[in-house]
Amino acid sequence: MSEEKEFEKLEPIQVESLNEILGKPFKVLDDGFVRVVDYMGSDQAIVQAARVSYGAGTKKVTQDRGLIRYLMRHHHSTPFEMCEIKLHVRVPMDAWRQWIRHRTANVNEYSTRYSIAINQAQQTSQDEWRLQSGLNKQGSEGFLDDTMGKELTDEETALHENIWNIYNRRIENGVAREQARKDLPLSTYTEAYWKIDLHNLFHFLRLRMDSHAQLEIREFAQTIGNEIVKNWVPLAWEAFEDYRFNSSSFSGLEMEIMSLLNSNQEEKAIERAKELGWLRLKGDKLIKSLERIEFEEKLKKLNVKIPW
Amino acid sequence: MSEEKEFEKLEPIQVESLNEILGKPFKVLDDGFVRVVDYMGSDQAIVQAARVSYGAGTKKVTQDRGLIRYLMRHHHSTPFEMCEIKLHVRVPMDAWRQWIRHRTANVNEYSTRYSIAINQAQQTSQDEWRLQSGLNKQGSEGFLDDTMGKELTDEETALHENIWNIYNRRIENGVAREQARKDLPLSTYTEAYWKIDLHNLFHFLRLRMDSHAQLEIREFAQTIGNEIVKNWVPLAWEAFEDYRFNSSSFSGLEMEIMSLLNSNQEEKAIERAKELGWLRLKGDKLIKSLERIEFEEKLKKLNVKIPW
Amino acid sequence: MSEEKEFEKLEPIQVESLNEILGKPFKVLDDGFVRVVDYMGSDQAIVQAARVSYGAGTKKVTQDRGLIRYLMRHHHSTPFEMCEIKLHVRVPMDAWRQWIRHRTANVNEYSTRYSIAINQAQQTSQDEWRLQSGLNKQGSEGFLDDTMGKELTDEETALHENIWNIYNRRIENGVAREQARKDLPLSTYTEAYWKIDLHNLFHFLRLRMDSHAQLEIREFAQTIGNEIVKNWVPLAWEAFEDYRFNSSSFSGLEMEIMSLLNSNQEEKAIERAKELGWLRLKGDKLIKSLERIEFEEKLKKLNVKIPW
Amino acid sequence: MSEEKEFEKLEPIQVESLNEILGKPFKVLDDGFVRVVDYMGSDQAIVQAARVSYGAGTKKVTQDRGLIRYLMRHHHSTPFEMCEIKLHVRVPMDAWRQWIRHRTANVNEYSTRYSIAINQAQQTSQDEWRLQSGLNKQGSEGFLDDTMGKELTDEETALHENIWNIYNRRIENGVAREQARKDLPLSTYTEAYWKIDLHNLFHFLRLRMDSHAQLEIREFAQTIGNEIVKNWVPLAWEAFEDYRFNSSSFSGLEMEIMSLLNSNQEEKAIERAKELGWLRLKGDKLIKSLERIEFEEKLKKLNVKIPW
Repeated sequence: MSEEKEFEKLEPIQVESLNEILGKPFKVLDDGFVRVVDYMGSDQAIVQAARVSYGAGTKKVTQDRGLIRYLMRHHHSTPFEMCEIKLHVRVPMDAWRQWIRHRTANVNEYSTRYSIAINQAQQTSQDEWRLQSGLNKQGSEGFLDDTMGKELTDEETALHENIWNIYNRRIENGVAREQARKDLPLSTYTEAYWKIDLHNLFHFLRLRMDSHAQLEIREFAQTIGNEIVKNWVPLAWEAFEDYRFNSSSFSGLEMEIMSLLNSNQEEKAIERAKELGWLRLKGDKLIKSLERIEFEEKLKKLNVKIPW
Repeated sequence: MSEEKEFEKLEPIQVESLNEILGKPFKVLDDGFVRVVDYMGSDQAIVQAARVSYGAGTKKVTQDRGLIRYLMRHHHSTPFEMCEIKLHVRVPMDAWRQWIRHRTANVNEYSTRYSIAINQAQQTSQDEWRLQSGLNKQGSEGFLDDTMGKELTDEETALHENIWNIYNRRIENGVAREQARKDLPLSTYTEAYWKIDLHNLFHFLRLRMDSHAQLEIREFAQTIGNEIVKNWVPLAWEAFEDYRFNSSSFSGLEMEIMSLLNSNQEEKAIERAKELGWLRLKGDKLIKSLERIEFEEKLKKLNVKIPW
Repeated sequence: MSEEKEFEKLEPIQVESLNEILGKPFKVLDDGFVRVVDYMGSDQAIVQAARVSYGAGTKKVTQDRGLIRYLMRHHHSTPFEMCEIKLHVRVPMDAWRQWIRHRTANVNEYSTRYSIAINQAQQTSQDEWRLQSGLNKQGSEGFLDDTMGKELTDEETALHENIWNIYNRRIENGVAREQARKDLPLSTYTEAYWKIDLHNLFHFLRLRMDSHAQLEIREFAQTIGNEIVKNWVPLAWEAFEDYRFNSSSFSGLEMEIMSLLNSNQEEKAIERAKELGWLRLKGDKLIKSLERIEFEEKLKKLNVKIPW
Repeated sequence: MSEEKEFEKLEPIQVESLNEILGKPFKVLDDGFVRVVDYMGSDQAIVQAARVSYGAGTKKVTQDRGLIRYLMRHHHSTPFEMCEIKLHVRVPMDAWRQWIRHRTANVNEYSTRYSIAINQAQQTSQDEWRLQSGLNKQGSEGFLDDTMGKELTDEETALHENIWNIYNRRIENGVAREQARKDLPLSTYTEAYWKIDLHNLFHFLRLRMDSHAQLEIREFAQTIGNEIVKNWVPLAWEAFEDYRFNSSSFSGLEMEIMSLLNSNQEEKAIERAKELGWLRLKGDKLIKSLERIEFEEKLKKLNVKIPW
């Protein structure tokens, strides 16, 4: 190595605010949890990695916070990949089925082939039964009334007991664990170690903290975000919230229409919307157009009067 | 481009023997299936890709079969990645949970948030209840007797009906689909499009066609291997069977001991095994050592007399 | 399988407009090219995969174009992963070094260990020498004057000849190809088969067609986009252009300020910008703030008067 | 969470023997290095993760070493993925081009768009010029004689100086860094942060420590293995050496022939080899068959007399 190169001895990067909660279970749902098992890196590690890429040229880049925000804003994702976290989670299988769809992560899940299944299923209390959303085919809104709720909860309690009895009877009669489990409900809890880099974790959080995510996994995501990531990499978390989680995106066509509106060319804007098929009528009523409706929502957020 | 380069017009690669079964469902378990939706590549495409790597130097490589076997033998995996297949599968969620652990694949799964769940769970008939294996903590061997089997099957039938009634009642009362499904059994069928490259498919098949894989997913893997891959890329399939599926691996230490045995140094071989801790005694009986037992099994396969 | 299920026989999906150019090399730079070797899927395949996810519930989703736009707008990426394309490319190693950073792809590259290196390096003509950008530390803008350009080009031509002579001399003297190549210039062309799914290809194109991408790789990306993808999946391409390539993103803070401006609360907006540190002064001049500058650019695009 | 669950507070896992060399550069080649920047996990972490999978059932698994060897032997790779390491490396671009082909890793590379290129290329001294291997089309064996070696080295020194002058002249004349670099030799050093999990690192090491790997990258791999991984996870390293690096694999057909030889059925074994096409003659000489030759090499290693 050239003589001028001298590297200092390093210490493993430690984040005090995260060390304090290492191993502590944060409760989620009725019997789930998330706890940090280990981690690597910090806000500093993100900066350190970015500066390898930029080499000497980076000396002028002002401050860590500014650099981290710049990286997030411009989707320079590789420095965020330099941080890694390992969680121990306890999750209903139903939510875990969604969780595991995130492929860029490492997983060791509790094996019900090898061991007796976890004797616990997520129970829905009488005020937690959610109504099917009409607008959002895959969502929910509002709750069932208490009377019906109680009925469903009682029915579920009995069902869980029944299933657990059947499972036990199979085991007692010598049925292989891998087969005995086949009728456990999706609400059965599973446990896993889940390890992921910060870039991919942010991707997970953006999708799963979103209001369209199913409530169950959303509660896990919120706990991971607000209780853990925020304490681990506060600068990156702030940038994530601003540039990813709370950001809004406008298509090229939407930008064009907004630009017309801002220069008092309302008619032209309406003309453009017509060309896009947003303003088709059935009788004298606008035909439902998701593109138009979603745009209108963003306009409202911006306090812009809808021109049509 | 340099003048001497002239590329011929290409046609999409077609494999007749696969085209014949395109879209055809191969039945698996009581209500599952696998069918090919589309594919890209063939044995020819593997060869074609390998020859890009080897450039002009490859002209002497004898034949396609030899080249494909060479690639497989030496773990040159990238040419196999040049083939891709898309399957439509119907699988119990329990098996799907294992399936989805293979991360290098593309997936679109039927959404029970968006649609009513598939009204079908895998049913175990009275002669299919498997006994827990003693040796293999995560396996099964043999079957329950018929009387007990019938009892468990009847119990399961009633349970499925019960669960399905509960699911329907929830739906009828307006519970959101995403929540109503929470107590469906793991045996409920799901459907998915699953797309994967040939290298990763071989990896999946090696693990899931293996006798240690759970019977249910093994039946899917066998169908994919024997009914589909064999018809798609017969040369690669043959190489896979020989160099992956039917191959045996010997550790450095095992090779050393076998080498000693083959040169009539039995005592030295036993000495070596002792050093490895394989021959510890409790009283006058060998203490169980998985390393030794697994080695002995391979020696038997080779018709080698076990020296200790 | 339940009796009511009947699957039709399938034919491999073919896209006529892509078949017409299959194998045809599109020239890029002075001696590079891109040509389609094979592909799987189409706009139809995206729709088909999305409908698996949505199951029966999807029957009402209006049309393919609307569905594809919906999927793109809401980052439902898995149906796009159901399409795959295999390209044969010839690229200077310098650009290839950037290209290969996209990890979710399959690659077979020409091996200069196995074969003599491709005797061709990308040559820069006298009017193509680009000036270092002052603003963008990793960019270029404008060109060197012709006199200096000619000097550099002549120097490069001589250098390439010199290097090639040295390479040949090494080979003639029996030096291993893997070592003889070590001083080939980064501008040397390499060739590869590159296979990628449509979702990841769009990600590649968004980054590499961008004006901040280096010119060389940008020209490859533009050729792939405009000559190939557009002919392959015209509906997805249109959605990509609108919702990804031409879209603009506003952070939560930017949305807040725009909303204030739109409701005539200019002072409050300025106040907010101050809090964000965007309006710090040095003497009576604004200190450079990338966050502010980038926001101002977006405001200009929207015809919004900058309030400070 | 159920009351009986009580998790102890955790400390970040520290490995003393690795902490001691944290940040220390290990020299490789004439000017390269490898140094550990940070890490997560240890042999203990592998065991800890495996025990999550096995749950209560695992209590009987004897010891950590035995468990780690079991996991390695049976390709249970996920617990090894629970360890992660981040290296800072300085590598000639030629070797880096091979390195980066391992896709499951995180990378931040020094950018020569953003900064002036590293003014250092790997120099080959007069006794290091390797001869092309005849047998192995992509390998080398032996060295050039010193006289010719000196000539090539002098020529290279002059070439590097020439190229560096040209690069500097371009920069001085204002050429963009991204373009000025285009004729740097492949031997130019680059630097990067490279982060990878232990399972994938083992895969990298198995391929790159192998005698068929190019010498340059092999030296890096050996340094990573012997100086770093061995100090980090000594039990996993031992298992890797035994079950991966020093292991031998026999195809189904090879096992069959060996089994015949071991039961004194030499003629049948020869018959089988003939059927496999291994013993074809041209005149009275065996035609070259890679399959046969590679098998013979393994037989020699086992002290088995070749029967034909």
